[in-house]
Order: sequence, then structure tokens, then C-alpha cells
Amino acid sequence: MENGTHVHHQGGGLVDTTAATITIKGILSLLLQNVDEKESKKRLISLGMGDPTAYSCFHTTHVAQEAVVDAIQSDKFNGYAPTVGLPQTRRAIAEYLSRDLPYKLTSDDVFITSGCTQAIDVALAMLARPGANILLPRPGFPIYELCSAFRNLEVRHFDLLQESGWEVDLDAVEALADQNTVAMVIINPGNPCGNVYSYQHLEKIAETAKKLEILVIADEVYGHLAFGDKPFVPMGVFGSTVPVLTLGSLSKRWIVPGWRLGWFVTTDPCGTFRKPKIIERIKKYFDILGGPATFIQAAVPSILEQTEEIFFKKTIYLLKQSSDLCCDRIKEIPCITCPSKPEGSMAVMVKLDLSLLDDISDDIDFCFKLAKEESVIFLPGTAVGLKNWIRVTFAVDQPSLEEAFRRTKSFYQRHARKL
Amino acid sequence: MENGTHVHHQGGGLVDTTAATITIKGILSLLLQNVDEKESKKRLISLGMGDPTAYSCFHTTHVAQEAVVDAIQSDKFNGYAPTVGLPQTRRAIAEYLSRDLPYKLTSDDVFITSGCTQAIDVALAMLARPGANILLPRPGFPIYELCSAFRNLEVRHFDLLQESGWEVDLDAVEALADQNTVAMVIINPGNPCGNVYSYQHLEKIAETAKKLEILVIADEVYGHLAFGDKPFVPMGVFGSTVPVLTLGSLSKRWIVPGWRLGWFVTTDPCGTFRKPKIIERIKKYFDILGGPATFIQAAVPSILEQTEEIFFKKTIYLLKQSSDLCCDRIKEIPCITCPSKPEGSMAVMVKLDLSLLDDISDDIDFCFKLAKEESVIFLPGTAVGLKNWIRVTFAVDQPSLEEAFRRTKSFYQRHARKL
Repeated sequence: MENGTHVHHQGGGLVDTTAATITIKGILSLLLQNVDEKESKKRLISLGMGDPTAYSCFHTTHVAQEAVVDAIQSDKFNGYAPTVGLPQTRRAIAEYLSRDLPYKLTSDDVFITSGCTQAIDVALAMLARPGANILLPRPGFPIYELCSAFRNLEVRHFDLLQESGWEVDLDAVEALADQNTVAMVIINPGNPCGNVYSYQHLEKIAETAKKLEILVIADEVYGHLAFGDKPFVPMGVFGSTVPVLTLGSLSKRWIVPGWRLGWFVTTDPCGTFRKPKIIERIKKYFDILGGPATFIQAAVPSILEQTEEIFFKKTIYLLKQSSDLCCDRIKEIPCITCPSKPEGSMAVMVKLDLSLLDDISDDIDFCFKLAKEESVIFLPGTAVGLKNWIRVTFAVDQPSLEEAFRRTKSFYQRHARKL
Repeated sequence: MENGTHVHHQGGGLVDTTAATITIKGILSLLLQNVDEKESKKRLISLGMGDPTAYSCFHTTHVAQEAVVDAIQSDKFNGYAPTVGLPQTRRAIAEYLSRDLPYKLTSDDVFITSGCTQAIDVALAMLARPGANILLPRPGFPIYELCSAFRNLEVRHFDLLQESGWEVDLDAVEALADQNTVAMVIINPGNPCGNVYSYQHLEKIAETAKKLEILVIADEVYGHLAFGDKPFVPMGVFGSTVPVLTLGSLSKRWIVPGWRLGWFVTTDPCGTFRKPKIIERIKKYFDILGGPATFIQAAVPSILEQTEEIFFKKTIYLLKQSSDLCCDRIKEIPCITCPSKPEGSMAVMVKLDLSLLDDISDDIDFCFKLAKEESVIFLPGTAVGLKNWIRVTFAVDQPSLEEAFRRTKSFYQRHARKL
């Protein structure tokens, strides 16, 4: 986030603001206020947020829903869980993640969180100390910047390189890191870019982090949602090279972002995090968090064991179809291009060519005018750190996608620069 | 907490520990490890934690359970809620709390949290700034000390006066407060003391806080669980005198602590908190929290509107019966006394007379030996700031209570000082 570079707050106080930080929800809410469905006579279509549950084609599996209903109706899970999570839930997630690793995680490696958002907070709060800095990707996910501001971590940004399929600029990482750098963050499959990192690139990230003696925080909230040529490889595969904190949740793969069931996992076979003082500090931090509901935790073992492969395949198929459609329609609109076709997650970055537009000053102006005139919402790239780009969420049903791009095309035609 | 006085941490870091803080769960877990059911040939009875769901007599109402099941089965609440909470949930809680106030709260006053624990964190994190201090009760609830340590708030303790039914020592509050004091905390109905504050005492608290220009954080997680002579009066009644932050949850009154549905409410008719910068900062803080599940939030309006009075009356009746039984049995054991009979909440403080015991050095020693020899767990008073007292949770079925005190009596008889 342009405005978020080198954010550093000491404490706060009720009247302080973390004005240097933008939130996706904040911008989307301003855009929504700008929509005038009556004036445009069009229903609102939002390609702004990664929540596909509004569309009936993206429905969670009955296995998951029934597991939660069974857990609550069992009357056994109305009480407190241990603050780090139910033992059976931690064990089930350890086993689930171990399927894709060259070693086995144990339940002690897994801490249950209220969605991936809380896992991000735990990671950053645990690493914060006076003077510490963290390396974040640009474009990225602004919760990291906001969390760093609240937890007193200095932020330094490295670029994702569009021309290399949004790979990490590892030279920049080396140039930015110093003795106060505690970690670098990668988001894979990528939000907002829709890229998927190769085994080779992840290996290079691990080697760079090892050389710099920093941790890797691997945000894998979109884990397994890869539909291009490259398979999803968890960063934990390189846990022997460098200690990895893996963050994830049920939200995206099971299409239940509202269930708030996430995890913070020390993917670290060498046991760097297994020192008693570190474990004690993590556990104490969990004591002040309100975790997810006990009965949802109790449903996790069934959900992870019993979800059928066909459910995952259907989601992947739908995302692939939607992303293809998205790229095709973008090609028909001269002022936007999609230089890197999405291979995973639910979003893609689209470049805006202002020289083809008459009265649009930047990405924010584009999105606000489009919202007002066409009731279509895209996220301005500025919100994720890339000015004059746009983030498009394609986890939307196809008729809505078609309609959103039809309207965007007509918006373009009205605003096209006269030659 | 004795050890937690004047805790002040700057930052932290993965290898730092907040060693100055004790947690109830930490101590109870050590006590549990000390239980040897095989050796004692007795089943474990814990009067250590305020979670009555283990006992079938303390069962939530079907209204609540069905409301949650309906919400998840409706398929409408699998997606994200606004981070501050669903609008209908905020509105329902505003209406629920307004029933007992001389003014009306609006949904903007209410923020939904993962249980009361997260509401405590929000309150303390929002008030933290360099040099700030907060006044906490002793005995108290150690999550406040732990949270203060993580959020860089200096802690100063005022005593609750046992001889005045655990009222706040307001002279001490005046003596402790300075220009860096941001708030004082009261827990009413009281944990760990089981007291209920009168209207008059709450009024005095409000006047003192007003004079000192500090906020009152009113932890009302046990709200309405009053079974003595005094009715429960919410601190918000005095919101016009002094700005109040009211913290609460479904956990205790609906006996669903594992659902993690709490609230952080600005009970503040004068609008002190309604400045745009403050609201913006609170909202941004909520953006980094994982709140409770959307479908549980969606069930709240039905739960608050449809729970029958008979359910609440039954709980009150059971708690009254249990607390009476508890006091009667304590009278039969010379080394423990209950100087203030409980009038609310689910716990009471019991004084230990070490002079009547032969080989017990303090409350911790008493609790560890009792756990080992009798498989009965009480919380040592040290964990809540009062050495050589014991916290007894009486939200337990009566046969278990009888058995726990029978064993405690036999423990006393074995360890009684020979005269």
C-alpha cells in the first residue's frame, strides 16, 4: 500500500488514528455509498470482495454444514475450548496439512484462530518488538499493514514482479532486510494477483529467508485453490530450510468465510518455535483472544476427513471457468488489460490505461465513477498497493460476470478519449 | 494479582515472556496435571472454572440452540459479516441493553466480539498509549492483567473491600489515579467474589470516575445473574455521569461460553466516543480481529427476543441453591470460611485459615495437595490477586458440590494442626 510504507506507530490511544492505513472494507464501503441503483436502474454487482457465498453456485458442502449442526446438537460443545483450540481440532488440522509435507506436523504445532485474520494478528503480534520490521508484498493484503500499525511493527515493501508472474523480487527482499527484520510475508495462491508460486520459486524464497535469518509467514488462506498449470505447493515443504508460520482457514476452500475457523501453524520441523518461552508466550497470547466457537471447532475433524474430492473439483472448475470468462471479457475493453492470467485464488490484478480515457484521473476515480454510473464495484488497486490497477474478484456467478463486464464496456465507451 | 502489579511491557518479541502474569487456565492446568485419579480412586471434581456446561442441570435453552441451527441451515450466513458485527445483531443487543437503561442505545453503540474476552482486549487496546495506566480491582480477573501487559498499559490495583461486601475502595482509586489514568474496571456481578453492587455504590463509582476524568469499563459478563437481595443494575445507568464501556456476552446468562458471542458497547449518551476519529479507530481495530461466526450473530435477535423468563429463573434458582449449599458445607470445614455470602455470578471467595492446618504453606500448596489427594480442584486466590484465599465456582450440580466438600472436609481432618 503506497500510503502504508514505513508505518510505525507507538501505542495509539483512543483519539489516535492509524490514518496511514487503508482497508479494503473501508474503500468498498465508500464505493457502495456511491452506488445509486435507482439512478442507474441497475442491480448492484460487486466484484470487490473475496466472498463468493452470495452466489448460489459457490455453496459449501453439506458435509461441512451437517458436521456443525451435529456438533451443536450433540450438546457437548457449548462450553469453553482450550484457548489454543480443541485437541481433536488441532490434531485434525496437523494431519490435513501433513498430507502435503515431507514430514509430520503434530497437534502442538497448530493453534486455532478466528479465521485467517486472527492468525495474521497472532503472527505479527508475536513478532513485534521495539524497532522490528517486517517485509510485506506489494501489491498485498492491507490487513497486514493495519495489523503492523496496531502491533508496532515497521513495514517495508518488496514488489511482486508482474512480468515474472508476480514472483517475489528477491533482490529487493535482500536490499530491504536488516538485523531488525523479523519476517517476510508471502500469500500463495496470491491475493490480489491470482498467481501460484512454483516449487522452484518457493525454494528460492526459503533460501533467501534462510540467508537473511528471517522467518517466512506463508498466508495460504487460498491453499489448494490452484487451477492453472502449477500445483499448489505449501511453503511448509521448505520448513527444514527456514522456519515457516503457516496461516490458513476453512474460509475459501470450503466457501465458509463467515465461520471464522482458521489456523496459525508452526511449520518448523527443526523446532525453532518449540522453545518453552516461545510456546508459553504464544499460549498466553491466545488466552486474551476469543477463538472460534467450540462447536465449529468440534466439526473440523469430520469436515477435513469427509469432504468429497468432487466438491473441491467443482470449485476449481467454477473458478477456472470464471477466470477464463473474466480474461476474455477484459480483452474486449481497451482501457483494461490482464497481463498475467490468474492461476489460483479468487482475484486478479487488471491494468488500467488512463491514456485511453477522457475524464478519469486514476484507479480510484475509475472505480467511483463506475460504481455511480453502472452499479458495478471493483477494488481500486491503490487499496492493495498498486495505483492505476484494479483488483477483480471473479468468484462470482457467470451471468453476473458477463453483466458486470458488459456495463464496464459501455462505461468505457462513454468515457473513451476522443482521438 | 500480586505479581502483576505495575506490569509494563514495551513491545515484546517472540522470545520475551509476560512472566509477570498468571492465567487462571495456566494454574488450573498445572493443578489438573497434579490430580492422580488412580491413586485417589476418585473421579475429578473441578470447582475451578466458570464453565457450568459440564453439568446437565446447566443447559442452554432450546430457543438459543434452534436459532443457531436455523441460521446455519438457512444458507444465508456463511459469508463475511461486517467486522463490527451484523447490523441486526448490533440492533438487537442495543435494544436488549436499553431495557435496563434510562436512555436508548443505538446499533452504532454496539460492536460484536468473540466472547467477552475479545471485548476486554478491544477496550484495553483502544485505551493504550505510551505512559497510560489503568486501575484494576484486586481480587480480579487476570485476563485484564495479561491483556494490559500485551497492550502496553501500566496496571495499578485498587482493593475490593471484603468487609463492605467487596465494594470498590474508592479512596484507593483516588489515590492511584493520575493524569495518565485512562480507566477503571469493575466486574459486576463480581468475579471472583460473587458480590452484586448496589445502585448507590455504582453511583459513587460514577462520581469518582467523573471527578478523576477517567472512563469506567463495566464487565457485565455475569449481567442479570443476581440471586441475592440486590438487583443487578448495569453501570450504563450512570452513562450520563461518566462514559462507560460495557462488556458482555451470551456466555453466562445463556450458559453457552463456547459460542464466543460477546459485545463491546459504548454506553455513553453524551457521545464522548462518537467522535469520528475514535469511531474510525475502533472500526479499524475490528478489521484485524476475527469476530464470531456470522450465523451465530444472525441467531442473536431470536435468542434475545424469544428466550422465556422461566429459563432465566431456573438458572437463578439453581445458582442460589448451589451457593447456599456451598456456604453451608464451608461452615462444616473449620479451615475455610466464607465471610461474604455470594449474591451473584458463579463464584465466591473463601478465606483459608492456615493456623488450623499442619503442613500447608499457602493457598497454592492447599490447592495442589487437595488436587493430588482428593481429585478436587479449587482455584488458589493468588491467581486472582488474593493470597491465602480460594475461589470456589459453585455453578456445579449439587451431588458434585456435596462430594467435593465431603472430600475437602476429610482432607482438612487429615491435615488439621494437632493441638
